[in-house]
Amino acid sequence: MTQTVTLSLDDAYQLAHRALRSNGFSAAHAHAVAQNVTTGERDGCASHGLYRVLGCVRSLWAGKVSADAEPKLIDTAPAILHVEAGNAFSLVAYQTALPVFIEKVRHCGIAALAINHCVHFSALWADIEPLIEQGLVALACTPSHAWVTPAGGTQPLFGTNPIAFGWPRPQQPHFIFDMATSAAARGEIELHRRAGKPLPEGWGLDQQGQPSTDATSVLQGAMLTFGGHKGSALAAMVELIAGPLIGDMTSQESLAYDEQTGSSPYGGELIIAMDPQRFLGAEQKAHFARAENLFANMQEQGARIPGERRFQARQHSQRFGVTLPQNLYNEIVALCQ
Amino acid sequence: MTQTVTLSLDDAYQLAHRALRSNGFSAAHAHAVAQNVTTGERDGCASHGLYRVLGCVRSLWAGKVSADAEPKLIDTAPAILHVEAGNAFSLVAYQTALPVFIEKVRHCGIAALAINHCVHFSALWADIEPLIEQGLVALACTPSHAWVTPAGGTQPLFGTNPIAFGWPRPQQPHFIFDMATSAAARGEIELHRRAGKPLPEGWGLDQQGQPSTDATSVLQGAMLTFGGHKGSALAAMVELIAGPLIGDMTSQESLAYDEQTGSSPYGGELIIAMDPQRFLGAEQKAHFARAENLFANMQEQGARIPGERRFQARQHSQRFGVTLPQNLYNEIVALCQ
Repeated sequence: MTQTVTLSLDDAYQLAHRALRSNGFSAAHAHAVAQNVTTGERDGCASHGLYRVLGCVRSLWAGKVSADAEPKLIDTAPAILHVEAGNAFSLVAYQTALPVFIEKVRHCGIAALAINHCVHFSALWADIEPLIEQGLVALACTPSHAWVTPAGGTQPLFGTNPIAFGWPRPQQPHFIFDMATSAAARGEIELHRRAGKPLPEGWGLDQQGQPSTDATSVLQGAMLTFGGHKGSALAAMVELIAGPLIGDMTSQESLAYDEQTGSSPYGGELIIAMDPQRFLGAEQKAHFARAENLFANMQEQGARIPGERRFQARQHSQRFGVTLPQNLYNEIVALCQ
Repeated sequence: MTQTVTLSLDDAYQLAHRALRSNGFSAAHAHAVAQNVTTGERDGCASHGLYRVLGCVRSLWAGKVSADAEPKLIDTAPAILHVEAGNAFSLVAYQTALPVFIEKVRHCGIAALAINHCVHFSALWADIEPLIEQGLVALACTPSHAWVTPAGGTQPLFGTNPIAFGWPRPQQPHFIFDMATSAAARGEIELHRRAGKPLPEGWGLDQQGQPSTDATSVLQGAMLTFGGHKGSALAAMVELIAGPLIGDMTSQESLAYDEQTGSSPYGGELIIAMDPQRFLGAEQKAHFARAENLFANMQEQGARIPGERRFQARQHSQRFGVTLPQNLYNEIVALCQ
């Protein structure tokens, strides 16, 4: 049986914060990262939870992330804001840009935020949630490392290229999805490898470009997109709009930059937000009731509203704390010298 | 063997135009529709080609589309433009809005166009192409009729909800994809039914909510989204952002409005466009070269660039014309009294 440690959310945050500060991250970056990984753990997403602290520190040791860069805002158009992260994690840059970005969205009705030159490890649902909580509709995407082959190809080119989307719901958990455009997350394949379990069909190809269910072969070969050529088209779109369009790297460039240090992807993130008030004015309430009908129809027939499970996990964690494997806990404690 | 008729693009346009004018469409609407269906036929998309003239006339006879509405522009925010189609087909409304919309995109950097209260039958790739040709990056989506069940459900709720995206390429056919978020287009299921052929697995459910490969059962039951719960999440996003967000119908409301006349979907379309110049300024050329690297990498390993096949069909049609089944040609001629 796996030994575990249960921590309150505050203790989880403090542990992450201590490990990050001990290794040289500035107060601002340590706070943002610790808050983010605690949020992931709280919402039942262990893959974006406290275990990320290990990777964050490893990226710093490898010289692949700045410990203390201060973000700079660059206003390029009425509805476009760039924030230069200066090789640091995306989070402090995003938080710095957020108030100015929201002003642009409220003023113009729709606006785009480009986070540039950042190291990216966080879940996109957590990035868009602050916008949804302000009553805005938002969309985010980011390339990653070149691990995924385009439909019809055999070589890794695209990242796992997640897309997140959120819709605000009054008095209800918001509708928020966050999905990789790859058939599976890379972390899931890694978990199959560790457990010695075969992969489901359709997750990847081996180094010869043949379909494979062997996790090690797929990790060395190429992952596949979800949904065949349609998922592949969406993955390409993410490469383009969160790469060259915002003046930043593709997944292939990010992987080359990594120099096999195993650090998180480096490059940009694009966030687009829309203000329903500016689309609908006084009629917003009536039209948003249509969306609630849609959700009710989904639930009546047993379809899940994206985000529901995270919200349930959140309520549980707020009451009972979060549970980490003992060895993960020990590894993080060992980083707190 | 099927008898066919080959027409020059101009003759194809004239035939469509005559049929539409003869049945009462105004000059502006007849021109826009005839141009659109000729474009579909030209690019090898028979499902958005001249056969659509039959449906357009049927919608008019059923009282489900205006023959002559004049669009009205409504400017709700610096980066939002609504165009009220007044129950007519979307095309004249879109063409009227286009110059004002492009101005907004160039000024703000990103902008949204909502086409409201339109009957929608046209391919989205044709809608975004004029934006891509102006050097803009664009995205379009629209709900349709409630034919598709959400992942985990059994009843039709979503439309086939297409998403189109385009990226401008200098001296190359543009990168443009246009895909239904359903596993297959409804027209493809209809073609299987006519041919008495079983459907591939994963396209739909029968009326009892069980997986079925019988086309008639699926047409009466529910279609499935592509890519399981991920495709379903995207279909829901389209319902929301091209429905309630822009003050227009969901696919379920559109189907109810249709009253079983078999008319095209009624509601809204959302188009979002971004100006790379406003994101990148003088550095656009360098960053767009990154995108070309991505495309070259795709092609080197045998992956297709979306839009390539349409562009090849276009070149062929411009030289040799388009070929219609004789019975379709006869049906359209019969509409030209």
